[in-house]
Amino acid sequence: MTTTLITGGTIVNAEGQITADVLVDGEIIVGIGVGRRWQADQEIDARGKLVMPGGIDAHTHLEYPIDAFTTQTSDDFATGSRAAVHGGTTTFLDFVKKAPGNTLWETFVERQATAEAKSIIDFGLHAIVPPTSQQADVHDDLRRLTAERGVTSWKFFMAYAAQMLDDGELLAGMDLARELGVLSLVHAENGHMVSRDTDLLIAAGHTQEHYHLQAHGHEQEAEAVHRAIVLATAVDAPLYVVHVSSAQAATELAQARARGARVWGETCPQYLATAYEDYEGLGDAAAGYICSPPIRERSNQDALWTHLAAGALSTVATDHAAFCMAQPDDLPPQKLRSPGYFPKTPNGVPGLEDRLKVIWELGVVGGRIDPCRFVDLMAASPAKLFGLYPQKGTVSVGADADIVVWDPEADHIVRAATSHSRTDYNLYEGMRVTGMPVHVFSRGRHLLDDGVEAADPGPGRYLARTASGTPVPSRRKSER
Amino acid sequence: MTTTLITGGTIVNAEGQITADVLVDGEIIVGIGVGRRWQADQEIDARGKLVMPGGIDAHTHLEYPIDAFTTQTSDDFATGSRAAVHGGTTTFLDFVKKAPGNTLWETFVERQATAEAKSIIDFGLHAIVPPTSQQADVHDDLRRLTAERGVTSWKFFMAYAAQMLDDGELLAGMDLARELGVLSLVHAENGHMVSRDTDLLIAAGHTQEHYHLQAHGHEQEAEAVHRAIVLATAVDAPLYVVHVSSAQAATELAQARARGARVWGETCPQYLATAYEDYEGLGDAAAGYICSPPIRERSNQDALWTHLAAGALSTVATDHAAFCMAQPDDLPPQKLRSPGYFPKTPNGVPGLEDRLKVIWELGVVGGRIDPCRFVDLMAASPAKLFGLYPQKGTVSVGADADIVVWDPEADHIVRAATSHSRTDYNLYEGMRVTGMPVHVFSRGRHLLDDGVEAADPGPGRYLARTASGTPVPSRRKSER
Amino acid sequence: MTTTLITGGTIVNAEGQITADVLVDGEIIVGIGVGRRWQADQEIDARGKLVMPGGIDAHTHLEYPIDAFTTQTSDDFATGSRAAVHGGTTTFLDFVKKAPGNTLWETFVERQATAEAKSIIDFGLHAIVPPTSQQADVHDDLRRLTAERGVTSWKFFMAYAAQMLDDGELLAGMDLARELGVLSLVHAENGHMVSRDTDLLIAAGHTQEHYHLQAHGHEQEAEAVHRAIVLATAVDAPLYVVHVSSAQAATELAQARARGARVWGETCPQYLATAYEDYEGLGDAAAGYICSPPIRERSNQDALWTHLAAGALSTVATDHAAFCMAQPDDLPPQKLRSPGYFPKTPNGVPGLEDRLKVIWELGVVGGRIDPCRFVDLMAASPAKLFGLYPQKGTVSVGADADIVVWDPEADHIVRAATSHSRTDYNLYEGMRVTGMPVHVFSRGRHLLDDGVEAADPGPGRYLARTASGTPVPSRRKSER
Amino acid sequence: MTTTLITGGTIVNAEGQITADVLVDGEIIVGIGVGRRWQADQEIDARGKLVMPGGIDAHTHLEYPIDAFTTQTSDDFATGSRAAVHGGTTTFLDFVKKAPGNTLWETFVERQATAEAKSIIDFGLHAIVPPTSQQADVHDDLRRLTAERGVTSWKFFMAYAAQMLDDGELLAGMDLARELGVLSLVHAENGHMVSRDTDLLIAAGHTQEHYHLQAHGHEQEAEAVHRAIVLATAVDAPLYVVHVSSAQAATELAQARARGARVWGETCPQYLATAYEDYEGLGDAAAGYICSPPIRERSNQDALWTHLAAGALSTVATDHAAFCMAQPDDLPPQKLRSPGYFPKTPNGVPGLEDRLKVIWELGVVGGRIDPCRFVDLMAASPAKLFGLYPQKGTVSVGADADIVVWDPEADHIVRAATSHSRTDYNLYEGMRVTGMPVHVFSRGRHLLDDGVEAADPGPGRYLARTASGTPVPSRRKSER
Repeated sequence: MTTTLITGGTIVNAEGQITADVLVDGEIIVGIGVGRRWQADQEIDARGKLVMPGGIDAHTHLEYPIDAFTTQTSDDFATGSRAAVHGGTTTFLDFVKKAPGNTLWETFVERQATAEAKSIIDFGLHAIVPPTSQQADVHDDLRRLTAERGVTSWKFFMAYAAQMLDDGELLAGMDLARELGVLSLVHAENGHMVSRDTDLLIAAGHTQEHYHLQAHGHEQEAEAVHRAIVLATAVDAPLYVVHVSSAQAATELAQARARGARVWGETCPQYLATAYEDYEGLGDAAAGYICSPPIRERSNQDALWTHLAAGALSTVATDHAAFCMAQPDDLPPQKLRSPGYFPKTPNGVPGLEDRLKVIWELGVVGGRIDPCRFVDLMAASPAKLFGLYPQKGTVSVGADADIVVWDPEADHIVRAATSHSRTDYNLYEGMRVTGMPVHVFSRGRHLLDDGVEAADPGPGRYLARTASGTPVPSRRKSER
Repeated sequence: MTTTLITGGTIVNAEGQITADVLVDGEIIVGIGVGRRWQADQEIDARGKLVMPGGIDAHTHLEYPIDAFTTQTSDDFATGSRAAVHGGTTTFLDFVKKAPGNTLWETFVERQATAEAKSIIDFGLHAIVPPTSQQADVHDDLRRLTAERGVTSWKFFMAYAAQMLDDGELLAGMDLARELGVLSLVHAENGHMVSRDTDLLIAAGHTQEHYHLQAHGHEQEAEAVHRAIVLATAVDAPLYVVHVSSAQAATELAQARARGARVWGETCPQYLATAYEDYEGLGDAAAGYICSPPIRERSNQDALWTHLAAGALSTVATDHAAFCMAQPDDLPPQKLRSPGYFPKTPNGVPGLEDRLKVIWELGVVGGRIDPCRFVDLMAASPAKLFGLYPQKGTVSVGADADIVVWDPEADHIVRAATSHSRTDYNLYEGMRVTGMPVHVFSRGRHLLDDGVEAADPGPGRYLARTASGTPVPSRRKSER
Repeated sequence: MTTTLITGGTIVNAEGQITADVLVDGEIIVGIGVGRRWQADQEIDARGKLVMPGGIDAHTHLEYPIDAFTTQTSDDFATGSRAAVHGGTTTFLDFVKKAPGNTLWETFVERQATAEAKSIIDFGLHAIVPPTSQQADVHDDLRRLTAERGVTSWKFFMAYAAQMLDDGELLAGMDLARELGVLSLVHAENGHMVSRDTDLLIAAGHTQEHYHLQAHGHEQEAEAVHRAIVLATAVDAPLYVVHVSSAQAATELAQARARGARVWGETCPQYLATAYEDYEGLGDAAAGYICSPPIRERSNQDALWTHLAAGALSTVATDHAAFCMAQPDDLPPQKLRSPGYFPKTPNGVPGLEDRLKVIWELGVVGGRIDPCRFVDLMAASPAKLFGLYPQKGTVSVGADADIVVWDPEADHIVRAATSHSRTDYNLYEGMRVTGMPVHVFSRGRHLLDDGVEAADPGPGRYLARTASGTPVPSRRKSER
Repeated sequence: MTTTLITGGTIVNAEGQITADVLVDGEIIVGIGVGRRWQADQEIDARGKLVMPGGIDAHTHLEYPIDAFTTQTSDDFATGSRAAVHGGTTTFLDFVKKAPGNTLWETFVERQATAEAKSIIDFGLHAIVPPTSQQADVHDDLRRLTAERGVTSWKFFMAYAAQMLDDGELLAGMDLARELGVLSLVHAENGHMVSRDTDLLIAAGHTQEHYHLQAHGHEQEAEAVHRAIVLATAVDAPLYVVHVSSAQAATELAQARARGARVWGETCPQYLATAYEDYEGLGDAAAGYICSPPIRERSNQDALWTHLAAGALSTVATDHAAFCMAQPDDLPPQKLRSPGYFPKTPNGVPGLEDRLKVIWELGVVGGRIDPCRFVDLMAASPAKLFGLYPQKGTVSVGADADIVVWDPEADHIVRAATSHSRTDYNLYEGMRVTGMPVHVFSRGRHLLDDGVEAADPGPGRYLARTASGTPVPSRRKSER
């Protein structure tokens, strides 16, 4: 087994920063010390650098079927995981959506195998809970996935005709999740309101891409968050709201947390770093910004940052669902399959490679969060919420050696042309960031060495996860 | 220098738990590792035990003058610091109140010297900001104390005739605090409302000790918390509300935090573990429960626990101000100096030795918080808020070796008779707790060795502190 | 035309009280004056009495089919309207629910005719909006009912499997209502949550009548109120929440109104004057208290009174749906058709005759509201909200002579045996009330003369109503 | 006694509108009727016109000493009351502030006499409660004023060094007010915050008139409103907040009302119809807009209108305190006594003549409120709150014949040159309004006859008022 010693760096964990050496033996961090005379096969001089846990992107869609499997995201597990490494991310959590004709279990098994064959970093998979109309016995598959594959997070849709659950299905699903120690994820938009507003826009001839925003009002997201909290509380289930985009929705979360509710929120770089004003005037090219919930008004951003700093929002993930603007020959229809008609534009934006850089620049360099909170949002909190901690999400003795050596002074311009994701545009094109990963380790494998990627990275592993470590105990316990 | 190796324990920090060895060299933790073959002068077998940072009690009153210096708390720095050690606390933060005839600076210098001569553990001192009527140039002394003595926390009173500041004084003081990186502490009760209700109770002949509660309503505390938040926000100063006792006041904090305000709250064991119902029928002996804000109705407790678990309350300190019920010859008048007349009863209750045990039992054993949150409340958060982190408050490489080896299975009955504080009663008399410190180290000095206290502990040190590490950046920064 | 002069009474309107004479000519109030020497065919000496507008009960179910038309309420329009008169109520608003096999229009026409043939007082009819699965073209019928029959209030169900609308149907219906100047009424309970909890209770064998309460939690009602407000606001429709029973739901209304939302709430005497504690121990006889939302804990009542006094609740109606406990031969199955099994107990309680007496006693005599607010809740506000003002709901010149002369000193014991509703029990049995109608006029017809009912009252009239006079202008207007 | 018959108009009261004739006999309305053949000495044809109760301006400062009696408002009781009539206002409520060297009682007696000698309309006087430092026995005078002069409203200042009361004085004063049935008025700004910000502005050289706004932040007003509500609630006193200018402060009121608190708010035309943007660029001339709280940002206005429509704000008064811009020889220093230095500019703006016209135009014509709410805000609510109802504030039988016949189609340009107040500018200069009083009666005296003022109007009367008719009963009552 190879040993590695990272010396003189500032270790940044969610809890605090210390200056010390880190000793890695094989896949594991085995020692942290000062003044120790440790020997190792290789030594990394990290003076002036930060030593952080590898990023965990809790929300990605690689090689992912869209709509009724009529199209697919452009990144596969190989290109996506490689892009992740270049951005300092060493773990991702993707989704399994029941395929037509297959059960959820069957779809899961197949997708896990695909990812294991291609990903160069570790990964987990959330299960998407389909309507019972699509699979009557779906709870059996969910139980089995949790027991046999460590699928300790399930996603519920409150919008999108094909996947939308009614409140009865939500209650039944969240109740089972709570019983099994599974974290309930919701896509929180009131699907009926979205549908209605979409229909009104179509009727009015307002189908240009940027009108997408108007079909997804703040109150639609806020209502769904409110209702999801009520339902989860009714069955005492912890709740995680994915891709919170609206300040009003974040306020619902903040107020529930202030009452002690066990709810967490995730937001995404696209909601913090880009805005409606960026695509309002782009015509068809605004398709590149279409995702749901939408990228909102610039005036909405400050409140999201406040909630990130103050805690109502607990993680930043990407919802990475990359598509190309120009249509490649080998891919199903991409962003411009229906120019000028937003209701058929594939939803999703890229970001897996950019997440740490963009948030470091706007958050830490921008003075909105400190480096510890950065690590918390990027790695520690997702690890805890999704049953990976302390194996992942911390530079600690006994943890997997998923380590990023970060140069806080590095200077870099974000460009699609020099990025590794399989897509031909970047939401942050031209943004200057200071702060870059110079070394990236995944379970001790040196995937990025002074900016150079490993020739033969070897495979990542599927992560069977433990029960969600939602930090606040449930009422049921506390009431005994 | 002596080296110590603590092997096989579960290290509990606020962030998480890992099982690893801890190597101490002299006063400092120098290594944490697994599978390392470290040599040390002594070895502690911590298998089955928890290895936690020493407790930090951010709110004590040892050897403390009460009212216009007419009486004094019963514990001096020697007895108090010894009691702390027996309870797993290795740092305390006490207060300096300007003495009549002396300036604040002079009083501070004298009190620091007294404490240095007697305390066996490290300590810091908060400065109490007197009304400008008592010292016109007090801001000069405050600047000097901060610059020369590292006094990075000041306390402001919103109640008590002799110490109460009006809003103008609060604004001026908090503004200076913000400028110097000092954390503003407030005793938050509306003093005018307390005075009025006290007068009404006296007029009605309701002076028996338990009527103390009625002079200190929930709304009085909540109003003061609300106003303190408004004032602190107006000058962009971070705010720490000491001894939050009312669920309604905690809700004010929770809502402000949900809006992103930089405010923190402290509560105390007496508000969580005892209640008005415990002293309502005690007659004069209810004097032993009198403190301000008061120990409230039992129905108030659950919400405090919820806010502790959810984050609106960030620390548990004791407000330890011990008095005796029976009058010793060598002390000024104690609890029963005015039997049957609560307005003259000295305010304050003991708890310095009991804090960790009581909160472990009710919080962790009771299922309301997990061990990490326990460490956060007891050590990490106070260390961060009061400029001591990561020197204190964490079991990390480079930190002071202030370590508690905690036996989570130990069984113990709390009794005044077997306690070490200089007082003759205990609010938790007869309470069975599981969880006790078996070893306590302060900067590497082995003060408690398998329950036996060190023969010659040596002196604690005064802690000149750095600027408060309030984790959420200020608006001013984030708006740039 | 007969003229009547009511002299010397205190006229109580919602706005204020004055002492003056009232002159009625035929069906209309034609003069109010002091010191006028008016001649009239008959003269009523009202000195020491109050002269109030006749009560308007905005929520009744007479001769009403329950469930899938398998049973029916016990009062028909004749017995019900007679009971109303004895209670001081001169107008009621009942409902039309689409009958199986008929369209909504057809059902309406038939039901209007039935009521016109039997009722001795004036009445209107709300239309219940069925799911589109029951009648695809229902919006056409709704438009026609509004245009041709003055049906300016429609009711939407958010619960009950057979009548429940999803959010899309609610949005479409409320939007049409807004367009036509129609007020949207909602039964606000989350039907999915009710169903789930009912199933859990059945599974646990908890089917005794009093368990009904547990299937209808506060949060289920509050969630539905919250959502209804969001939906109504989205389409800018004014909203009226019927039978608000939970203080938590009332708080949702209060907060929305504090933000300027155009929402109103109705509560009922049974929620104010009786409580769960009254039927918890009754066994099968608790069936008499079953209605939805349920009669809740006594601790819930105070907040409802506060909201009635302060304005978040705007009307008190009865939701009168009378059944018998003993089964009469000539009625379909009544309250005890499924003893010990609440899920099949017909929902509904009587109250049409008791409303004014009970609310006067608890509200006015009890010091919670003044006589003007009493008139507002009982007559003026319903008249305004339902498009009847100033024809009804006020003692004003030009208004219909629907007048109650009220003796505030009368003493009366409420008893089923001496009541006029066709039911064999009374929720307020044995309650002593001071305050009774001594004269009741309906459009000048003297239906109750010193407590004696008219031998030949003549028919009441169907009220084609104007657009709802919701007093707060819409945002759309105010934003121009 | 003269009789007058006003025929064919639409009577608008707060409660509703009806079309009927109004008969006045001497000072009193004696009949309202339709189809009556009343004879009268004079007849006013009001067809197409609105017949409304005369306006009540609950907040004026005529002939009013400013600061330490160093200057005085420009309107005396003669010019002010004449201006009122031209604007449709028939009652005003002014203030008495204790004069140096005199007791409050003595000052009151003198001021009442002055006003009786000059005012042509009826009026009342609020008493301003001075700090106890200015008059130790002031509660004796307050009791006597209430008992002997019907002074049932007292004003408390939370700002302005010379008049500011601390919370203890507020509690004592409000408690006495509650005991005597007196309504407590507060000027709600945190005086300490205002002083501090003023000092900072002076120190920074920011003394140009428009900087006045920056010394009076929203949070200062909101904090004071919040605290006033807490204090009033503590002593169970109803509370009326004068001149609410900030949407944030109005929200505090709205939320308290939503909880059932007995609190009311007043706003003023200057906060609804003018904005900071109107005077920001005026240089010294911005002095004409200086009042406290300040005229705020335009973005603040919409929320005030929402609260007016929805009820959190209950009245619109003027806070009329007129000064001249050019200095007349016979007046003490006016607006420009300290050009370029806002801290010494006399506070106050005119508006007594403009109130009804401006609010009718922006409110009723603008679609924000309906005519009934207009009458409620302008006359009925102030009459009720200040113990004048139903003598004033309603067109009802038995009421004083204070009547305005309003032409809703009249067209008028507001101009200082054609106004009657003694001041040389008008905040609404050039504003076109539709809606004007054509006839004004005060206790039957025909003061304005088709726009022509009466040659010999005769004197108005001082109004000894009854206890405040705050419509919501107190908790104390409701809890019995």
